[in-house]
Amino acid sequence: METPNWLLRRAERTPDRLALAFGPLRLTFADVAERALALAGALAAAGTGPGERVALWAENGPGFVLSLAACTLLGAAAVPLNTRLTVEEAAFQLADASPRLLLHDGPLGERARAAAAQAGGVPTFALDPDDAFAGGAGAAPVRARIDLGDVHSVVYTSGTSGRPKGALVTYGNLWHGAVAHAMTLGVRTDDRWLACLPLFHVSGLAMLTRSWLYGLAVFVHERFEAERVNAAIDADGISALSVVATALGRMLDARGRRPYPETLRLVLVGGGPAPLPLLERAVALGVPVATTYGLTETASQAATLAPDRLAAHLGSAGTALFPTDIRVVREGGGDAAPGEVGEILVRGPTVTPGYLNRPEESRRALEGGWLHTGDLGWLDAEGYLYVADRREDLIVTGGENVYPAEVEAVLLRHPGVSEAAVVGLADPEWGQAVAAAVVPAAAGAVGVEDLRAHCAAHLAGYKVPRRWRLVEELPHTASGKLMRGRVRETWPADG
Amino acid sequence: METPNWLLRRAERTPDRLALAFGPLRLTFADVAERALALAGALAAAGTGPGERVALWAENGPGFVLSLAACTLLGAAAVPLNTRLTVEEAAFQLADASPRLLLHDGPLGERARAAAAQAGGVPTFALDPDDAFAGGAGAAPVRARIDLGDVHSVVYTSGTSGRPKGALVTYGNLWHGAVAHAMTLGVRTDDRWLACLPLFHVSGLAMLTRSWLYGLAVFVHERFEAERVNAAIDADGISALSVVATALGRMLDARGRRPYPETLRLVLVGGGPAPLPLLERAVALGVPVATTYGLTETASQAATLAPDRLAAHLGSAGTALFPTDIRVVREGGGDAAPGEVGEILVRGPTVTPGYLNRPEESRRALEGGWLHTGDLGWLDAEGYLYVADRREDLIVTGGENVYPAEVEAVLLRHPGVSEAAVVGLADPEWGQAVAAAVVPAAAGAVGVEDLRAHCAAHLAGYKVPRRWRLVEELPHTASGKLMRGRVRETWPADG
Repeated sequence: METPNWLLRRAERTPDRLALAFGPLRLTFADVAERALALAGALAAAGTGPGERVALWAENGPGFVLSLAACTLLGAAAVPLNTRLTVEEAAFQLADASPRLLLHDGPLGERARAAAAQAGGVPTFALDPDDAFAGGAGAAPVRARIDLGDVHSVVYTSGTSGRPKGALVTYGNLWHGAVAHAMTLGVRTDDRWLACLPLFHVSGLAMLTRSWLYGLAVFVHERFEAERVNAAIDADGISALSVVATALGRMLDARGRRPYPETLRLVLVGGGPAPLPLLERAVALGVPVATTYGLTETASQAATLAPDRLAAHLGSAGTALFPTDIRVVREGGGDAAPGEVGEILVRGPTVTPGYLNRPEESRRALEGGWLHTGDLGWLDAEGYLYVADRREDLIVTGGENVYPAEVEAVLLRHPGVSEAAVVGLADPEWGQAVAAAVVPAAAGAVGVEDLRAHCAAHLAGYKVPRRWRLVEELPHTASGKLMRGRVRETWPADG
Repeated sequence: METPNWLLRRAERTPDRLALAFGPLRLTFADVAERALALAGALAAAGTGPGERVALWAENGPGFVLSLAACTLLGAAAVPLNTRLTVEEAAFQLADASPRLLLHDGPLGERARAAAAQAGGVPTFALDPDDAFAGGAGAAPVRARIDLGDVHSVVYTSGTSGRPKGALVTYGNLWHGAVAHAMTLGVRTDDRWLACLPLFHVSGLAMLTRSWLYGLAVFVHERFEAERVNAAIDADGISALSVVATALGRMLDARGRRPYPETLRLVLVGGGPAPLPLLERAVALGVPVATTYGLTETASQAATLAPDRLAAHLGSAGTALFPTDIRVVREGGGDAAPGEVGEILVRGPTVTPGYLNRPEESRRALEGGWLHTGDLGWLDAEGYLYVADRREDLIVTGGENVYPAEVEAVLLRHPGVSEAAVVGLADPEWGQAVAAAVVPAAAGAVGVEDLRAHCAAHLAGYKVPRRWRLVEELPHTASGKLMRGRVRETWPADG
């Protein structure tokens, strides 16, 4: 199926509507289209054209948005890089994606040049710090129509285990994702979304897609800061935002008991299962939380629990989006029974066609027409999905399976615990030993013996951590996902 | 593209949400699915199956909705018939569509049996007046998945000129129509639509599609009654409804100066251009009117002017829906200049693949990949569509083109005029003479000389009607469209 170019069509339809807010900057859709066209002209002059790839290394801001827009105007696939990558990691992704150009903002200039050189000499292109791109670059040959089968972007999956793979995200994946989003959560033409998570993640690309398709404003913050988010909800009339669970917790901590205004209609919580106590707190405060399960390979949401269903299915990631199907299968094959943990499989129009340069991994991931997510979870009898854990985090101790999220959820119920990471450490006797790294709610708020007793009271013996650390903070990805692999790798030999 | 069966998926997702209200009856999505499954079982027992057609002759009510739902469960294409058809007209459409069954409600029983017999013996099936359909009909083989290329229904176009043609409406036409609707007008999960126009029109099918895809409630009235509509907006919290211009006028007349509640967010006005004075009145009263241009062949809306743009583009039908393109072409070919009247062409995912049993007419209608609507209009420089008239209503007098809607709009500006129809009557001297039939606002409110002077003050001489009638009412189609052909045909020879 073909559609008109999304940004150009939107700029024709509602040219004067607010598209993008960043600090004091306010851009209408006409402004965004005008600047993106100018940037596209500059990129075309630098030799970029349809069917090519353009890497993009930029912090949240207009430069990122306009670069992405310029790529869609040229028909080039964007390759957004995680801004936290080391030079070596970025060079690996650049070498894999072989982009025609690497666009970067000012702060990333030095690392961008080093990574581009290390990747064999990818040309770099510094984004104009004023984001005006008006510098007489000439008109680019613009793609007025979009084929939904074309590749919109290549997004490298976080790859906490193994080497990163570039998931192909098509225009159709994003289009149908925006459509399915509306079928579960509705969409208001006066919605104002807050982007306080990295735009380079697929959830950021999905948010910008919704902005262009539905004509919604996006307010962009450089990074998540709880007080600033709360202030924006009050002052900017933010109606919807995407956060991870820890960010929601910090928002509520900073907010105290002051209710959010009625203009706030949706807080989409993704990036891993949210702790039950946090969700209970949100429900008690009347915060319109929707939990969601999604992957880069499903162009953001695959399952979502709308705010009006949250309380009745607390802890679930909801049901598969309207045009999407989810199955849970046993290790040996065959559908798991309701309540039985297995691998989560996803099918539908938002599922990636595969990975760049990885025919064999693509074939395996999409075998039988279903995306094999590698994530573990179960469906209840009504089809509500509960995500147990990432498969690579599964702990096997003495022949018993332990799902870290389950143990962490128990730890988080303890009033003295702020955050917890549970991992499996190599153990000569049991194969793996369950180990817990815990951030106390305050210095000295809790001791190991207390925590051990708390777990023993709520968990089968083999699930109770054998090894403990009290730490000041835990490592997270840029999107706020807990990096259990890092916790495991950095565990002291004598800890 | 495939999707899950819309109704079944919706009933899984939000089983307890209100789907359908009719008088005191309230059905959730689970109720609708349950009853539709029972009816599907009965239809399967009567020999109906996938790929067949099922005609449906029923007034607005649950019987219509459940019958349509049962057809989608079986994979049979519904053929909804206009309830105002004569037996002969219905028999023509039945013979053309050759359905496996003719479903009918009680009031239409006698005419249905007569038409079915006249069409060569189509079996008839009386809908249960209680709409329960629980009578042990056994389980039907249900289509769990829908191919968007499959035919959902065959809808006969009003055919005021020539013989009626059955436009094929695919699942994809309706799906993309619902998607495009949301991109222009948004969709709220708590929306409550009022269906006070006939459900058998494509706008009714589109409304039910939105209900199933987005989980919205539809309140059904048997027919349009201004006071009842106004009362439902107050008492039932109706947030959106579709009407024709005359209906909107009656609603506002009945309402007086009492404002509508804030829950009302959308009054979609279609079925032909709305008179400017009516739109000005709606704007002054703050009624959230959206004007729209659509056809059976575009699965309802093709262009829409959202409420927030109405005042700035009064009289326009808006811009083409997001994934839709509209061109206006000259008689001889080539795109018309901005402001220049020509034929309206439509392209996009909501456009019909053609007409049943009419390969040649389908080819002509869709030549070059664009639907040739036969309607006349123009685009302004910003792409806003103004519908001038139906081509078959064009009046040519003394070599000059006169568009009836233009003359009618002038007449409607006169305070003594309630409604007007302008037609061309055969004239020995000029080819056609412009003739106006006028409904005065009250008996004796206006005279012909007054009206002639009013027109002469606002129109070029050749556009001023030469022949006049003052009448008590004008003929309309079931959907409220003015039937100019009827006015012309019934004009007295000496009038």
